[in-house]
Amino acid sequence: MIKFDSDYLEGCFPEILRKLEETNLVQTPGYGEDDYCEHAKEVIRKECGAPQAEVHFLVGGTQANTTVIASLLRPYQGVLCAVSGHINVHETGAVEHSGHKVLGLPSGDGKIAAAQISSALRNHAADASREHVVQPAMVYISFSTELGTIYSLSELKEISSVCREAGIPLFIDGARIGYALMSPACDVTLKDIASLADVFYLGGTKQGALFGEAVVFTNPALAKDFRYNIKQNGGMLAKGRLLGIQFSTLFEEGLYFSAAKKAVEQALRIRKAFEKRGFKFLVDSPTNQQFPILPNDMVKRLREKFSFEDWGYVDETHTAVRFCTSWATPDSSVDALISNL
Amino acid sequence: MIKFDSDYLEGCFPEILRKLEETNLVQTPGYGEDDYCEHAKEVIRKECGAPQAEVHFLVGGTQANTTVIASLLRPYQGVLCAVSGHINVHETGAVEHSGHKVLGLPSGDGKIAAAQISSALRNHAADASREHVVQPAMVYISFSTELGTIYSLSELKEISSVCREAGIPLFIDGARIGYALMSPACDVTLKDIASLADVFYLGGTKQGALFGEAVVFTNPALAKDFRYNIKQNGGMLAKGRLLGIQFSTLFEEGLYFSAAKKAVEQALRIRKAFEKRGFKFLVDSPTNQQFPILPNDMVKRLREKFSFEDWGYVDETHTAVRFCTSWATPDSSVDALISNL
Amino acid sequence: MIKFDSDYLEGCFPEILRKLEETNLVQTPGYGEDDYCEHAKEVIRKECGAPQAEVHFLVGGTQANTTVIASLLRPYQGVLCAVSGHINVHETGAVEHSGHKVLGLPSGDGKIAAAQISSALRNHAADASREHVVQPAMVYISFSTELGTIYSLSELKEISSVCREAGIPLFIDGARIGYALMSPACDVTLKDIASLADVFYLGGTKQGALFGEAVVFTNPALAKDFRYNIKQNGGMLAKGRLLGIQFSTLFEEGLYFSAAKKAVEQALRIRKAFEKRGFKFLVDSPTNQQFPILPNDMVKRLREKFSFEDWGYVDETHTAVRFCTSWATPDSSVDALISNL
Amino acid sequence: MIKFDSDYLEGCFPEILRKLEETNLVQTPGYGEDDYCEHAKEVIRKECGAPQAEVHFLVGGTQANTTVIASLLRPYQGVLCAVSGHINVHETGAVEHSGHKVLGLPSGDGKIAAAQISSALRNHAADASREHVVQPAMVYISFSTELGTIYSLSELKEISSVCREAGIPLFIDGARIGYALMSPACDVTLKDIASLADVFYLGGTKQGALFGEAVVFTNPALAKDFRYNIKQNGGMLAKGRLLGIQFSTLFEEGLYFSAAKKAVEQALRIRKAFEKRGFKFLVDSPTNQQFPILPNDMVKRLREKFSFEDWGYVDETHTAVRFCTSWATPDSSVDALISNL
Repeated sequence: MIKFDSDYLEGCFPEILRKLEETNLVQTPGYGEDDYCEHAKEVIRKECGAPQAEVHFLVGGTQANTTVIASLLRPYQGVLCAVSGHINVHETGAVEHSGHKVLGLPSGDGKIAAAQISSALRNHAADASREHVVQPAMVYISFSTELGTIYSLSELKEISSVCREAGIPLFIDGARIGYALMSPACDVTLKDIASLADVFYLGGTKQGALFGEAVVFTNPALAKDFRYNIKQNGGMLAKGRLLGIQFSTLFEEGLYFSAAKKAVEQALRIRKAFEKRGFKFLVDSPTNQQFPILPNDMVKRLREKFSFEDWGYVDETHTAVRFCTSWATPDSSVDALISNL
Repeated sequence: MIKFDSDYLEGCFPEILRKLEETNLVQTPGYGEDDYCEHAKEVIRKECGAPQAEVHFLVGGTQANTTVIASLLRPYQGVLCAVSGHINVHETGAVEHSGHKVLGLPSGDGKIAAAQISSALRNHAADASREHVVQPAMVYISFSTELGTIYSLSELKEISSVCREAGIPLFIDGARIGYALMSPACDVTLKDIASLADVFYLGGTKQGALFGEAVVFTNPALAKDFRYNIKQNGGMLAKGRLLGIQFSTLFEEGLYFSAAKKAVEQALRIRKAFEKRGFKFLVDSPTNQQFPILPNDMVKRLREKFSFEDWGYVDETHTAVRFCTSWATPDSSVDALISNL
Repeated sequence: MIKFDSDYLEGCFPEILRKLEETNLVQTPGYGEDDYCEHAKEVIRKECGAPQAEVHFLVGGTQANTTVIASLLRPYQGVLCAVSGHINVHETGAVEHSGHKVLGLPSGDGKIAAAQISSALRNHAADASREHVVQPAMVYISFSTELGTIYSLSELKEISSVCREAGIPLFIDGARIGYALMSPACDVTLKDIASLADVFYLGGTKQGALFGEAVVFTNPALAKDFRYNIKQNGGMLAKGRLLGIQFSTLFEEGLYFSAAKKAVEQALRIRKAFEKRGFKFLVDSPTNQQFPILPNDMVKRLREKFSFEDWGYVDETHTAVRFCTSWATPDSSVDALISNL
Repeated sequence: MIKFDSDYLEGCFPEILRKLEETNLVQTPGYGEDDYCEHAKEVIRKECGAPQAEVHFLVGGTQANTTVIASLLRPYQGVLCAVSGHINVHETGAVEHSGHKVLGLPSGDGKIAAAQISSALRNHAADASREHVVQPAMVYISFSTELGTIYSLSELKEISSVCREAGIPLFIDGARIGYALMSPACDVTLKDIASLADVFYLGGTKQGALFGEAVVFTNPALAKDFRYNIKQNGGMLAKGRLLGIQFSTLFEEGLYFSAAKKAVEQALRIRKAFEKRGFKFLVDSPTNQQFPILPNDMVKRLREKFSFEDWGYVDETHTAVRFCTSWATPDSSVDALISNL
């Protein structure tokens, strides 16, 4: 059985395990105040072209999202995002648990437009009884989105500019940022992200680390006392070094982007194979997640050898499914799938 | 520089890294629904003599404490614990962030007594305007405590019996449970813990894992929907297998208890060395944390070669300090310290 | 200027002020534990035909909604309601502030259907990764709705039956329950409400009291420790007697329903007057709120003598507005409006 | 039976009821945006000598405390107060429910000292692992305290100055501020309060209003968006005019202070009567609450004709009790008590 269910099916880059072994008995201070973390932060600031950035390492995505969002909002404020945004649908209400409403904006492809944001802000400001309504006070987007789609540079610039005019932070969930940046369809660089967002994260979990997300506040004023927030949200890893070691390895050895690039190429091979056979897609994704719409009997047949996610009912005889490649997908798995179509 | 600052200064048992390597490219489902986790749960249930227990793996202690406590309380309820309890002083108000008051009971040595609990419950029940007061609805103790002390079996039995009579859960924080159980002064077994608590955890972070705490609900009714709580609190590790693999290794190979035993022996050697030289202790700890009261100039001198924690001002010329041994402490470090006294 | 902006523009029934004067210097225990409250509860239980019901008085609607909802949900659970529901749009995220997600269901007329609820419950139960998603665990509907519409008895029965099958509570926001029950289009009685809901409230604020909502738990098991919840949410009025006195007066003297009946008749006169002149309505409301769609210049002209709420843009030349009658609306105001059309 | 249980046993000043009648059918906008509220705010600003102040009306004390505190703290911050402070012991954990820890400072008489505050702040700042600890970020005191005691002007100045140096707000709970200011032992004026606190409230509930507390932000920057907070906490009264009308009446007609003055005189008569008979007091209170320590049989005997609160066990034969006078206490009640001693 070959699995395309997700991009967190395997462990991590062997290089990471090697580094963990090499450093295993070195004694370091806890909670991320060690030299490995310092070094990794420096590496990341360089990659981002953001020497002023404040970097923090958290264990997972839900934790990173909630901790960042709760740290930036006052009690009566909410966060704008696509209705399909991870924080709105797949985090068991973690943002609400922290006291804040997620303000979903309609979206078919996982993206939201600058115009939707400015309209939400304008409507709120114009509402005579606005204090009866949650105040939209930050924007969350994911890059790539939960549907594999990506923003163009000009779209991101517009969103960023709406946020800056309104004085509210733009937060980019980068759980799959490598797969986005390495897509041939992408005209955005990491430095663009760093200059357009106020805070974002470089996902480790889905991109070759055992776990971990590197939260980058390119607007360092927003990071004031962020370590208190991390600790309060249960996200301060005692052996914080584990995160420092992993992120250094991911970026210093170029693994992060080279592996993401390859995964995207593999996903596009899968896409092409389905396209060639005339299948349609739920959404036009240029990254490592592909959502073909398949006849139910074909789904059933493929499932004898491959596993992949159901993505939803399309009509009585068709289902949308998701094939996900990752840093760890061997070419042979992709070959096997394609030849099986 | 030899460090005795804490029990999370190093990585993990080499056996764990070896297992991570062996399994690294195996594809598994995420979020703890893999066979490694299933196996580890089975191993733990056996160690605890609790076949009915429901086991969940979380990444860290603050997360485990908050998630368990918030899952068991209704909004107006609070948790009784020693004023020195970890949840009361060292988790940045994580329990309060989840909406609940920590009801601190006076304690000099990190422990609380059954009589304190029953008196708190009785006072609340007798209060005519009790709905103006937070309702005490669960008990949190740590074993060993933050001061290295341990409960005797009879003390635990009394606490458990007060809780059961009142119909409120007893939760034992076992971040250092191995060091407690392996103390020569301890007359409690893991099976006792399992039968006396309603929920407790086996700490991994401080006892040889990279990270991880195994929460054991010996009262499985309390675990209903616990996975929702884990996810909402940002504690559901995508590659949950990492926790399963670690806990299997810790318990199957006997490492957990043998290493704890050795660490306690080392700590007691340190204790004896200080005692022989006439030093007093802040508290009488029979486990891996020792709190001698030392002259300030001696502290200064020792700091040239060793690092250890300040534990607090005693008088103008004396300070209490903490020496902590762990699963990773080499005998040579202890020898060096003792010969340096 | 004659105001039709809302149903809380004036003070209260003069009968209430009279009772407040008569009892002003009587000494009573605080916090609702006085005889006036006891009596009012008894009166309400009788009106509802629910001798088993537990009744609590709160000061306002947002407070009542949040306190009830937060008291019934576990942390990871959410409440299903119409997207236009008061808790979803006009309470500044009070439910989210208490930690819970409001799960909005599409609705054009302020109502939701039993089928929408059962489908939401079924989808959640069928979701393999449902612990990543907020669990729908109660239903909130308003009667009449925020758009003046009402449920038929058979609709309510279906909703109630879906909830009972699923074992989740049905909560009815009755801020305007009198205006609903007294509509000629209504085939529901207060006793029906009491037998179909698990908890609901009789709104005072919008129906002739100075303030106050009477929360009725017809399923008294759900009210366990509810007074703690009230106090914690800042809703326990020190001089609770004020609520008891008001609700006794509202119901004993028949004022509540007779005044609501008259207000609905007045609203229907307004409706008819607009209809006769060929105007359309945003929604077909048989209660005290009417939402005609008017040409913008007519709106402007009417505003010279009357005030009423903008309800939203319809097209470039038309706006939907709201005219609201209440227990206090004099016939002369309605006459003036109609003759002005 | 004559009641001395509390200062909220009766309704309100007859002058208030009269004004409610006079204005009963006037139509006003809701939610405190009416002229009565505007006028009352102006009156209060004048009384306080604080033309810059932002004034908001809330219904009750717990609501006022929680709303103010939650609006001023970031998630990881807590509020310093006396262990006996109302927010710490008699609000069912409302502050914790809003996510914040109450940081209790030891206190025998209900007061805290500037030195305790500065020491708490210094200790936090000096703690190397302070992000594991709740950050003290505001100070709450009550004036008069829950034990009837009052701060001297110099004590208040010191506390205020510690807060201002540290850049954290000082919040004064004035539920009984009139009884404090009118005590012959008091050297503080309302204008002092207004200039030393950043935010405080003038209690209505315990001082002759039906209900209501006037929150005064003398530091108006702290009040930004406060109406959102009020609404979210369920504290925005639909008929906000009721609060405006009451507070105008309390202050314009001089009732507030004259009635408080008389209540304090009555309490001091009671005190003197007990003193003359050789009884000791739990605490030395110069305001409307008196806490004599009485033999249990005397308590029993007095209870035949009077009701008053138990305040706690002193020894096997003695109990501390509370006698409370108020704006509504007739001299005859005090005479009856005294002659009964």
